[in-house]
Amino acid sequence: MQLGVIGLGRMGQIVVDRVLEAGHDVVAFDLDEEAVATAADGGADPADSLEDLLDRLGDEKRIWLMVPAGEAVDITLSELETHLDEDDVVIDGGNSYFEDSVRRAESCPAAYLDCGTSGGPAGAELGFSLMIGGPEWAYEECTPVFDAVATGPNGHERVGPAGSGHYVKMVHNGVEYALMQAYGEGFELLHEGRYDLDLEQVASVWNNGAVIRSWLLELCEEAFREEGTDLGDVADRIEGGSTGTWTVQEGLEQEVPLPLIYTALGERFGSRADDGRFSRRLANRLRYGFGRHEVQRRD
Amino acid sequence: MQLGVIGLGRMGQIVVDRVLEAGHDVVAFDLDEEAVATAADGGADPADSLEDLLDRLGDEKRIWLMVPAGEAVDITLSELETHLDEDDVVIDGGNSYFEDSVRRAESCPAAYLDCGTSGGPAGAELGFSLMIGGPEWAYEECTPVFDAVATGPNGHERVGPAGSGHYVKMVHNGVEYALMQAYGEGFELLHEGRYDLDLEQVASVWNNGAVIRSWLLELCEEAFREEGTDLGDVADRIEGGSTGTWTVQEGLEQEVPLPLIYTALGERFGSRADDGRFSRRLANRLRYGFGRHEVQRRD
Amino acid sequence: MQLGVIGLGRMGQIVVDRVLEAGHDVVAFDLDEEAVATAADGGADPADSLEDLLDRLGDEKRIWLMVPAGEAVDITLSELETHLDEDDVVIDGGNSYFEDSVRRAESCPAAYLDCGTSGGPAGAELGFSLMIGGPEWAYEECTPVFDAVATGPNGHERVGPAGSGHYVKMVHNGVEYALMQAYGEGFELLHEGRYDLDLEQVASVWNNGAVIRSWLLELCEEAFREEGTDLGDVADRIEGGSTGTWTVQEGLEQEVPLPLIYTALGERFGSRADDGRFSRRLANRLRYGFGRHEVQRRD
Amino acid sequence: MQLGVIGLGRMGQIVVDRVLEAGHDVVAFDLDEEAVATAADGGADPADSLEDLLDRLGDEKRIWLMVPAGEAVDITLSELETHLDEDDVVIDGGNSYFEDSVRRAESCPAAYLDCGTSGGPAGAELGFSLMIGGPEWAYEECTPVFDAVATGPNGHERVGPAGSGHYVKMVHNGVEYALMQAYGEGFELLHEGRYDLDLEQVASVWNNGAVIRSWLLELCEEAFREEGTDLGDVADRIEGGSTGTWTVQEGLEQEVPLPLIYTALGERFGSRADDGRFSRRLANRLRYGFGRHEVQRRD
Repeated sequence: MQLGVIGLGRMGQIVVDRVLEAGHDVVAFDLDEEAVATAADGGADPADSLEDLLDRLGDEKRIWLMVPAGEAVDITLSELETHLDEDDVVIDGGNSYFEDSVRRAESCPAAYLDCGTSGGPAGAELGFSLMIGGPEWAYEECTPVFDAVATGPNGHERVGPAGSGHYVKMVHNGVEYALMQAYGEGFELLHEGRYDLDLEQVASVWNNGAVIRSWLLELCEEAFREEGTDLGDVADRIEGGSTGTWTVQEGLEQEVPLPLIYTALGERFGSRADDGRFSRRLANRLRYGFGRHEVQRRD
Repeated sequence: MQLGVIGLGRMGQIVVDRVLEAGHDVVAFDLDEEAVATAADGGADPADSLEDLLDRLGDEKRIWLMVPAGEAVDITLSELETHLDEDDVVIDGGNSYFEDSVRRAESCPAAYLDCGTSGGPAGAELGFSLMIGGPEWAYEECTPVFDAVATGPNGHERVGPAGSGHYVKMVHNGVEYALMQAYGEGFELLHEGRYDLDLEQVASVWNNGAVIRSWLLELCEEAFREEGTDLGDVADRIEGGSTGTWTVQEGLEQEVPLPLIYTALGERFGSRADDGRFSRRLANRLRYGFGRHEVQRRD
Repeated sequence: MQLGVIGLGRMGQIVVDRVLEAGHDVVAFDLDEEAVATAADGGADPADSLEDLLDRLGDEKRIWLMVPAGEAVDITLSELETHLDEDDVVIDGGNSYFEDSVRRAESCPAAYLDCGTSGGPAGAELGFSLMIGGPEWAYEECTPVFDAVATGPNGHERVGPAGSGHYVKMVHNGVEYALMQAYGEGFELLHEGRYDLDLEQVASVWNNGAVIRSWLLELCEEAFREEGTDLGDVADRIEGGSTGTWTVQEGLEQEVPLPLIYTALGERFGSRADDGRFSRRLANRLRYGFGRHEVQRRD
Repeated sequence: MQLGVIGLGRMGQIVVDRVLEAGHDVVAFDLDEEAVATAADGGADPADSLEDLLDRLGDEKRIWLMVPAGEAVDITLSELETHLDEDDVVIDGGNSYFEDSVRRAESCPAAYLDCGTSGGPAGAELGFSLMIGGPEWAYEECTPVFDAVATGPNGHERVGPAGSGHYVKMVHNGVEYALMQAYGEGFELLHEGRYDLDLEQVASVWNNGAVIRSWLLELCEEAFREEGTDLGDVADRIEGGSTGTWTVQEGLEQEVPLPLIYTALGERFGSRADDGRFSRRLANRLRYGFGRHEVQRRD
């Protein structure tokens, strides 16, 4: 089948490559001409504009968006929409907020599939895990492409109607924050603890048969191998947080407590408090207030 | 080589089977005669007492203890000790507290290896992950047995001196509590949330290529397959907690905060508070105190 | 001065009483005629409609709204607005969401004061703490009324522009959740702990000179005195949660971690999970998955 | 009555002063001669050794220890014990671990009262809150002294047998950690939040009638008044933690979850992690592992 891919960053290029490799045709577009050229080198049909891409797709268009979540998706859709009809399918493979996907599915003339995509750049070889929401027929139509982009037929599922794909991906990411923090707590205790341990060795033996073995633990092992058991100059600063924030917000909405996910998110916020945490500064001062304990001062 | 195995419960039998399968000899003993008979059926040499086991092992004894952590280990060791010398090796494969292992290593006339064993009954087929503390030479001597019991040569490591094996296993279990709770939060939100999802399907697609894929997530998938997406009559009650408690205590000792592990442990405690949580009952009553909100009463 | 009061529930009646007691005039209205009659018994001038109330107020109207937060405020304002101009002042003394207050302040023809009110029914005698946002002149104009409703001149402050009063009140309530839970944890530990203690006695001695003495601790003392040291039939169920939820949401927005407030809010959610917590049910089942620990089942 | 006071630091001097002021006699001793001289200036009878103090007390000795918790108590007791008999009373007014107090009560020939003392240096004027464990008769005997040291007759209670006084004080301190952190979260959100607020003003208006008013909130008000609304050069570093740690350990023992107290304690630990938190450094690196997000590095 033929697929249009819009957005040729790291993840978009992987989509192009895997779809081509599976024997399908790809028309590729990006605002960055170099990215288009890279895709063309790999065998894609290069488009020099959105209109050009639409022209090359003919009827019953299948379009995969891999542009940054947020405004970029709406801008792209607004340009596409006048050229789409109900026989076409648009797939949003980015990390969009699920309520945006519901809204877009309602306003888009084409069938709209929200596709949560997990696996990161490592998916270039293994393929991704795809959580898809939207009309059944559109999902069926695009199955050959999903087979190619995912790890295989088991690596993609239609989990429900519009929005459900990005909803499941949102929760996936919330869990991901907590898992990273859970491993982090364990390794921090081992690092600060009573024994002088080789943490790569520990991660390795855990990855061979232990209950907590996982892909993230393999990445821990890789991190210790590449950075050293004390993580070298890796800083105490964690960027990101949008999908985790959405997960916590949805937990509030549903009245579901998510203390681990919340704590992991809070560690990110705390790691970026460059002037120190105000709450701790107040506690420091209060200890003087009631107990005349010396106030710790900044230099 | 020849191995004596003391303690033939589920885990002990797996040790016996895997060691036999690798072509070694096993002398097996348990207080329960039926367990000894089972081991003998599998090809082990049955002993009818600890002394008999010691007699059958001859010089340079290699003994694997797989008895319940705590007093049972000390009782067994006290019976063995008069018959052991410095050329012998005792391996404690149970979930002992690491400080007990340090103490036992000091008092035992034989070389003492504390061996954290992870993987559960599923290890019968795959083999275990073994985290081992104690003298290097003793670890080397027992390598053929560790190769057999573990997933293979990568499934066991000597992580440090006496106690370090059980220390690493303790932390492993603390992380395990937090990982389970992290997945639990995600699935709880999906279960209570906006979409009517098939959680086995979600777990399955995540296990195929998603960042959070893991063996525990495969067990989630299995749980939903066997119990249904709403977990049927599975109760809100989590037993156990000793290794998690030790992990938190060690975090206090080392001044390392472990909020996820602590919270996961607290969920276990909370799930067993059959008369309700006193703190919540007080908050309920306080809302009347300051706001005259109706007090919720028990029937 | 003359004040119109709309909304004569428990809190509204206290406002009426305290303002009358301070020698001011009150025109009172509520949809419930009995409530109006009660206010009239206390000395207020009863209005039988919003229009009637407006008529009785004459020029330079000063109106205190004490209606439930949410839609009721908007409905009342929409009826009032055509009769108000820039010399009038409307005070919203309820628990409105601060962004609603900002919006209302912008659209209301009168000066708009958002007034967070804390102290509960106990404020009938002591007076309230009032956190007020909005134009300085309007705050000054209404000072006599604030002096009367608050504990006195120190019991009210203009903390900033529109919305800031309800913002500060929102955070106050978030802190309140955490304080209740903090005391709850302490008393739960004492209740479950090693000694057979009289918790009223403990609360009493703490309230006399201890660092943690507070009004909430006085309410704890009262609770134990009235319900008994084991809180009798008070249920493990905490209602409410909107202001705490807003506080957490604002923390997400500002990237400020609020783990204690979040945890206290989560206890409310958890206390209302009548079918048990799904996350715990999954953990229970997973312990079977990896360790063949018996699954706890519902009867 | 006559009281011997051993340990004349800040808290010991306050005990001496308040007991003298109530018209009793005090014999005072400290290893530091200057401290003894200060007590003598205030009207105490100075002792130049423990033996001298014992001589001056005569029969039916009443002795208040105000020495640092830990070894100093045991050393002092071992010197005293040969001179004490069952008609004497020893009061430990320090922050001793309750199990130490139980042990000391058993071995001390005199009646032993463990006396948790709260209120800090501010107690010089107001008096303290005293939570006392030990024999009823000894508590009755010392009532005149407790009346003097406490805020008055309501400021002291015998809460139970040996150890219970320090047990209740331990839990008091755990709650104290959580209360400070709860206020800290609120003020941090206000400080980082949408409005430019004067936090002294906010604390002041809350202290006048709001539900969360308390002595700790008065200390917050004082802190903002003295340090400024942004707390000036007060550092993000909280010392101390022993009583909080004991509280959490006892929670583990009793299987009572204390998430707020634990989190507050963890903030102290985290504030002292001068090389950054290892768990966060690992999460930072893992984000590269699965998503090729740029690793934040130290300069």
